[in-house]
Amino acid sequence: MSTNGYQAPGQRPGLLIAIGGAEDKTRERKILRRFVEAAGGAKAKIAILATASALPDTGEKYREVFAALEVAEIVVLNVPDRAAALEVGSPVLEALEGATGFFMTGGGQLRVTSALGGTPIAASIRRRHAAGMVIAGTSAGASLLSEHMIAFGEGGGTPRQRQVQMAKGLGLAPGLIIDQHFRRRDRLGRLLTALSYNPDPIGLGIDEDTAALIEPDGMLTVLGSGTVTIVEGAGLTYTDTHHALPGKPLTLLGLRLDILSDGARYDLSTRRGLPPLVAPVPVPDPEEVAYGDGREA
Amino acid sequence: MSTNGYQAPGQRPGLLIAIGGAEDKTRERKILRRFVEAAGGAKAKIAILATASALPDTGEKYREVFAALEVAEIVVLNVPDRAAALEVGSPVLEALEGATGFFMTGGGQLRVTSALGGTPIAASIRRRHAAGMVIAGTSAGASLLSEHMIAFGEGGGTPRQRQVQMAKGLGLAPGLIIDQHFRRRDRLGRLLTALSYNPDPIGLGIDEDTAALIEPDGMLTVLGSGTVTIVEGAGLTYTDTHHALPGKPLTLLGLRLDILSDGARYDLSTRRGLPPLVAPVPVPDPEEVAYGDGREA
Repeated sequence: MSTNGYQAPGQRPGLLIAIGGAEDKTRERKILRRFVEAAGGAKAKIAILATASALPDTGEKYREVFAALEVAEIVVLNVPDRAAALEVGSPVLEALEGATGFFMTGGGQLRVTSALGGTPIAASIRRRHAAGMVIAGTSAGASLLSEHMIAFGEGGGTPRQRQVQMAKGLGLAPGLIIDQHFRRRDRLGRLLTALSYNPDPIGLGIDEDTAALIEPDGMLTVLGSGTVTIVEGAGLTYTDTHHALPGKPLTLLGLRLDILSDGARYDLSTRRGLPPLVAPVPVPDPEEVAYGDGREA
Repeated sequence: MSTNGYQAPGQRPGLLIAIGGAEDKTRERKILRRFVEAAGGAKAKIAILATASALPDTGEKYREVFAALEVAEIVVLNVPDRAAALEVGSPVLEALEGATGFFMTGGGQLRVTSALGGTPIAASIRRRHAAGMVIAGTSAGASLLSEHMIAFGEGGGTPRQRQVQMAKGLGLAPGLIIDQHFRRRDRLGRLLTALSYNPDPIGLGIDEDTAALIEPDGMLTVLGSGTVTIVEGAGLTYTDTHHALPGKPLTLLGLRLDILSDGARYDLSTRRGLPPLVAPVPVPDPEEVAYGDGREA
């Protein structure tokens, strides 16, 4: 899978990191540390976009988190609204030119798309990513990676007609519909509803404190304490979504489902799940330990 | 699929009706009415087993529900415990011989299996079903139809090691693991955990006020206001269930997922979903109605 359509010959797009929200920011910080490493470690230049957040200090809080991870250069981009995004000669464009890593915070994804959609800043983010800039997004920031993005929708595990509202995202991962806070907010239903509208994209449901690391060749690896749920609808044989009444439970036949925990992989080009590259260390069976005689439990 | 291994030549087993709990008992009563019709309508002789319930009047309450549906003969079986189930010459056996329909209430499924397991009553239920007796179970009563039964487990959408406890069920639908109150209690995780242990059975997750009607030839049809979630693991390519620590999120790769709403079908023998037999009446698009000019919305 080409994760975007913008790379020039010889360029390799940067890693994409879609985080399900509520990532560990104070202890091991596995996910944020992985982002910093991919962006160059101590030499990383990280640009933070907090436009999604309604809180005034979200950008500064992430600056502190990345400073604690010893990032050399951190800039919080100032794009509060569409007027700012359209400002000619905005310093944001210059900051993006130098950035090796770009981080999008949580909040509301429509704050970002309504402000940045169709602006030179959005174009710059895509172009810089195609040239190698690593991009991470958490919560709303993860959804924003999609081309066809879940803008909002109700929770609940049953797909229901009109349960989800779609909008154009930033298009960094055009073949994916990314949802977040997936298990905590019980969002399988709205992801399935989105796929019933058009099952072409692969649906990713990312749990909190969990990330999907997506390489430019389409290899996805899971990192974190929860799971990534992957729903694949290319083989969908039937849905009643086009004639169901609003709110009615939908039928979707012939989906594929993969549940991936830490280390498990998924090849987005072949649409198949793969075991962890490094086999997990076998855990002794507690019964064996308890009896100490090595018998099978 | 043969839904059990007990039918003699020339016999046709009865319909199985697995209900997700909280079925409509006072208004249209579509599910309970379908059960009564399958059991012979006005000529039905229905035996109710309320052993699962800790409440003393559950059996009598269902007697009233079936009486309101004009069932000719209704008996509430008296099997409060294992001593009663082992009673020689129990009138329960005679009641089962005459019954055309057998209904199992909700409650706790282990109350039933611990009392009836291995008794002549359990054998009689299977034999009578093989000879044509219709069987319905709601909530715990639906789980009891399984051969490998979910006894209890925690809610939550993420499969986790040791999240589910299995027990031997009544074995009327040996190829199925049936879970109920599926969306209301968010039980996808425990069903997936059960399948990770052994993906041979097909997993059914049945919503409240929703039923899976299972014909002896293995054709399943959904009836009700929610959905039936079908998880099929024959193609499972990998799981880490055998070495994961207790409570750890599990990986399951290569599952198939079908979501069925009212009228949708699933062939348990070929393991494939099918559209409703009668196409739903097309619903006019609200935009068309609003504009009255027949244009596409």
